[in-house]
Amino acid sequence: MATNTQVRLAARPSGFPDASSFKIEEAPVPEPKEGEVLVRNHFLSLDPYMRGRMNEARSYAPPVALGDVMVGGTAGEVVASKNPSFVAGDKVVGAFGWQEYGLSDGRGLTKVDGKLPLSAYLGVVGMPGVTAYIGLYDLGEPKQGETVVVSAAAGAVGSVVGQLAKLRGCRAVGIAGGKPKCDYVTHELGFDACVDYRSPSFADDLRAATPDGVDVSFENVGGPVMDAVLARLNVFGRVPLCGLVSQYNATEPYTLKNVAALLWKRVKLQGFIVSDHMDRWPRALADLSIWVAEGKVRYRETVATGITNAPEAFFGMLRGENLGKQIVKLV
Amino acid sequence: MATNTQVRLAARPSGFPDASSFKIEEAPVPEPKEGEVLVRNHFLSLDPYMRGRMNEARSYAPPVALGDVMVGGTAGEVVASKNPSFVAGDKVVGAFGWQEYGLSDGRGLTKVDGKLPLSAYLGVVGMPGVTAYIGLYDLGEPKQGETVVVSAAAGAVGSVVGQLAKLRGCRAVGIAGGKPKCDYVTHELGFDACVDYRSPSFADDLRAATPDGVDVSFENVGGPVMDAVLARLNVFGRVPLCGLVSQYNATEPYTLKNVAALLWKRVKLQGFIVSDHMDRWPRALADLSIWVAEGKVRYRETVATGITNAPEAFFGMLRGENLGKQIVKLV
Repeated sequence: MATNTQVRLAARPSGFPDASSFKIEEAPVPEPKEGEVLVRNHFLSLDPYMRGRMNEARSYAPPVALGDVMVGGTAGEVVASKNPSFVAGDKVVGAFGWQEYGLSDGRGLTKVDGKLPLSAYLGVVGMPGVTAYIGLYDLGEPKQGETVVVSAAAGAVGSVVGQLAKLRGCRAVGIAGGKPKCDYVTHELGFDACVDYRSPSFADDLRAATPDGVDVSFENVGGPVMDAVLARLNVFGRVPLCGLVSQYNATEPYTLKNVAALLWKRVKLQGFIVSDHMDRWPRALADLSIWVAEGKVRYRETVATGITNAPEAFFGMLRGENLGKQIVKLV
Repeated sequence: MATNTQVRLAARPSGFPDASSFKIEEAPVPEPKEGEVLVRNHFLSLDPYMRGRMNEARSYAPPVALGDVMVGGTAGEVVASKNPSFVAGDKVVGAFGWQEYGLSDGRGLTKVDGKLPLSAYLGVVGMPGVTAYIGLYDLGEPKQGETVVVSAAAGAVGSVVGQLAKLRGCRAVGIAGGKPKCDYVTHELGFDACVDYRSPSFADDLRAATPDGVDVSFENVGGPVMDAVLARLNVFGRVPLCGLVSQYNATEPYTLKNVAALLWKRVKLQGFIVSDHMDRWPRALADLSIWVAEGKVRYRETVATGITNAPEAFFGMLRGENLGKQIVKLV
């Protein structure tokens, strides 16, 4: 009998998670009952929000229960269907989590057109791409000629944010860790500048890269990087607050210094999660699909292979080792 | 010859200002030239924002230059006019600053109807009232049944915020310093509850006063009080950020702990200054005038007498000694 390898939450980490946070289990591949669909997952998405779900405290959503399969977006292929909306061979995205197979009654399962590689539907034309689109265009409201700064600029969301800013006629400035990422951001993605937050001259470099100040700060990381960008904000600046990845493993959270800038500069800061904006997904995905096909939005993936390697790939992503979207290929 | 007593900025304070920050001068009362109006100021408004203008760094606006008359809103009476729009005896509000007389070409000078006591046009039907109105209704977007928390609840702005929240069908919870202020806020202004931030049980008291969490936090003070309210925010909470008065004299600013709440709760935080919303003033003043006349919005003033006492009254306001609007009566 075929088995379904799964990664389950074994223990709630304090600080940075490690192998003991997870346990690998073999389960039987489930049989679809009437109305159900069985999907073989080919790709698992790894995303920073998952770290929040490992904690006991509620983040956006309730935590993953101890012993449960880790949550996560997946892309795969229907292998058996007793649901009239799906047939074997359909390419679908869903949220089956860290496992090789998933069973669904059809809810939360979306057929994809297959014009792009299947993994792209977990990235640039999936949740991270839509996050960039909604966060920048709807909440950031960038206007032509304005300066947009995005942290984690080489990541799945940040890399799209800067390219969308360029499409809107803005100056796009990335913040990333290290020269290879910054080179990728400027040379391959076409940002106007990228600043290495690990450099001792980071604050000066950021100032030099934003000679007209910052109108939109798309915040993915928080911590000292957020403080540095707040200090560069212009009057009526906007801060779509998408993530605080620098804080997810912190046992003592960073405390923010430049709160007064939010007042004096009359800043609009908006925390958001893309799933609160489902009405905007169709338009975002339609635009992104066209722009990717036209080569106006480019993307890369960092791919780990095999579900059992998901934890290591996850740790690497939390350390910022990925370039573009972190994927696990489930062969 | 009549003299015009003025308070000028003598030195930029580090930390809390004192008498040496100001100097009192006697100037001749100016003569209006063609097109000009001379106003005898009867009331000077004292407001927390003035502390920011004493610093070298820009706050909302450029600082007051050393040696210049301190800025501020005033209400008074036209005593001589060579401007066809004004005649002697007109009651007017303007921004003549900390002095007994002001000269204007008419710009920035507004005739008031005189239905309420003249000083009210510096408070409940003036800048602080409009600040409360725009900050709460336009930026806070309170809905019936929601909980609104406002800090500095016994002050000129906060006292109006809570009453406007009640008019919108919300639960209004004030935060203020000490029992007399809290009693005023609940007994006289009709807030549902008021929490003393100086109490050792402040966090517990705030929790008890907000059993359904906080939907709108109208923030006037910043610091630990802001952190405490952020911890009580509901999903999709709104934070109109109006002031940070606890920080204006701080040499080391408080650093904010609950930044993650802004993300997880998808909070909209909006820094604002009322002068950015001039289009809303007429409607706000019209509504406030009606509600004050009907007794639906009540107000108090703390009145110092004589321009030379303005500095002491200002220090008292910064220490939170005033109940309601701090005014200086210029006899």
